[in-house]
Amino acid sequence: MNLPEIADLHDTALRQRLQQRLDRKTKPTGSLGRIESLALQVGLIQQTEAPKWRSPQLLVFAGDHGLAARGVSAYPSDVTWQMVENFLAGGAAVSVLARQHGLALSVVDAGVNHTFAPRPGLIDRKIGFGTADTLVGPAMSEAQCVQAIEAGRELVRSLPGNVVLLGEMGIGNTSSAALLLARLGGEDLERCTGRGTGLDDAGLARKLSVLRSVLTRHREASTPLAVLAAMGGFEIAMLAGAALEAAAERRTVVVDGFIAGAGVLAAARFVPRVLGYCVLAHRSAEPGHAALIKHLGAEPLLDLGLRLGEASGAALAWPLLVSALTLLEQMASFESAGVSDRRDKRAP
Amino acid sequence: MNLPEIADLHDTALRQRLQQRLDRKTKPTGSLGRIESLALQVGLIQQTEAPKWRSPQLLVFAGDHGLAARGVSAYPSDVTWQMVENFLAGGAAVSVLARQHGLALSVVDAGVNHTFAPRPGLIDRKIGFGTADTLVGPAMSEAQCVQAIEAGRELVRSLPGNVVLLGEMGIGNTSSAALLLARLGGEDLERCTGRGTGLDDAGLARKLSVLRSVLTRHREASTPLAVLAAMGGFEIAMLAGAALEAAAERRTVVVDGFIAGAGVLAAARFVPRVLGYCVLAHRSAEPGHAALIKHLGAEPLLDLGLRLGEASGAALAWPLLVSALTLLEQMASFESAGVSDRRDKRAP
Repeated sequence: MNLPEIADLHDTALRQRLQQRLDRKTKPTGSLGRIESLALQVGLIQQTEAPKWRSPQLLVFAGDHGLAARGVSAYPSDVTWQMVENFLAGGAAVSVLARQHGLALSVVDAGVNHTFAPRPGLIDRKIGFGTADTLVGPAMSEAQCVQAIEAGRELVRSLPGNVVLLGEMGIGNTSSAALLLARLGGEDLERCTGRGTGLDDAGLARKLSVLRSVLTRHREASTPLAVLAAMGGFEIAMLAGAALEAAAERRTVVVDGFIAGAGVLAAARFVPRVLGYCVLAHRSAEPGHAALIKHLGAEPLLDLGLRLGEASGAALAWPLLVSALTLLEQMASFESAGVSDRRDKRAP
Repeated sequence: MNLPEIADLHDTALRQRLQQRLDRKTKPTGSLGRIESLALQVGLIQQTEAPKWRSPQLLVFAGDHGLAARGVSAYPSDVTWQMVENFLAGGAAVSVLARQHGLALSVVDAGVNHTFAPRPGLIDRKIGFGTADTLVGPAMSEAQCVQAIEAGRELVRSLPGNVVLLGEMGIGNTSSAALLLARLGGEDLERCTGRGTGLDDAGLARKLSVLRSVLTRHREASTPLAVLAAMGGFEIAMLAGAALEAAAERRTVVVDGFIAGAGVLAAARFVPRVLGYCVLAHRSAEPGHAALIKHLGAEPLLDLGLRLGEASGAALAWPLLVSALTLLEQMASFESAGVSDRRDKRAP
């Protein structure tokens, strides 16, 4: 597999200039908290003291999961394609939020078990009609996994802009995400597994038991590619590719929730530097997300008890990313506004 | 003092209709978390299943504090009027955010120690040129305190719209807020007192020692009005009045951070039902805010380590409030979108 080079973000001189610019703004030092560290990160990504957003791209990768037939989700698999239709018709949460924020929304058919009529906003990169049942064998072949990753890369190359917001849709994919986190992150499966779209206690117990068997079934899978092929999903692999390419092109990567985060975790096993380009949009109510966040090494922007996916959390967080750069650009400095600095910093 | 009547929000039938409307949207039940409870709260406030925002008003109340001369802030008192100029010139954080979100920004001179030239965006409700030194006597007379509360009420009455975002500016006012929280909330003063705009360890120790003496000096103040007059600020009392009037008119009240929250705490000691109309915008990095939030009885929307005031946190949170109502209005239902419901909810 052809992996992109991703630059490190250790430009100390630029970091210092960005920090000074932030510190001269008319506010107590550091008083905009996470918004300031966000502005600094994006400045380093874009390699400038004056970062700006250009043509943000909201991408929702959709795929089906053979494992869903084992009853690991509260919803039937048909909901994947039905929700893709809903995204395109403008009625889903992410559609509404994309309109609110003027974000270009593309829905990517990475491997839904359905044939869609072509139309604007739908991007066909179908690898297959859903993955195979991972309890029986690998969810996909390694060749398919590479194909999905490279499709995600190529897709980002074809899109304008310097920031991507990544989300997903796929009934059964909290199972994939939990499995990837358990294997790639070395986390206990219980800590990775939650109710997804809303399993009851019996359903959660069944899901955990199925996932335990899957982990055992694939205990031989050891490389990141083998693990992703064995227990991932088409949408997750494609999302990983999209994140890798975006980072290689110095785009900021806004990561939605638990499943998008699992895709980024996989991406980081290929090229660890991808993580420096990621902004975690929110802390999901799905319990495995807490463990995943530690591996991704960043603090999420929002903590609203969301567990919807679709990039809805990324879209909800988007105005904060706009604010970070707008404040850096437009706030006055102590000098320009004629505001007195701290007592202990003023000239004697 | 003339206090407004505030309606309770216990319309069980409407609550049920709102909940059903949310639950029919194409998403797992409850999966939009805090955004759903926000939509429900605003529906109850506006008494409709289809709440909408009209003419949001961003109000920044500014006032000076006699106690600032005791060295309880890292910045000199002149910064209050200088920042008011900065708000009006468009260079402050809240000015930038108001522009980003199309919010009407009004700066209210509640009692700044400065004479401003009149101009658009500046509302003159000056009660005095800063409060008196609360270490020596009450910060203001009870008559002045009533005057400030009533000015805040009258101001909101004069403005259009069904939602106000309340913030403040006043060097020294984390001290006032800490004192109010300690006395009105019965909290230990140490838990209420922080570094404000950025005191060092010695400064924090000095602040705490001064505030302890203030609390002792005013140990006789027992009614909410006496406490607010003795240790509050003109901007805090006016903000309390604004919150009371807004709630009485069934406007939603978006409360910025620690100091705005202290104003609302005071308001709630006059009319407890005001709290049902409040949305806490964020959890401040100022340590007293955690204790204050418990008294206000609501979960803040953002937790970004902000400690700037000015209503900057309220402005940052505003798009989430817009999203809540837009999602409620525009998301498709399972029926309208033709999406299958949960396995256990489908007709047999």
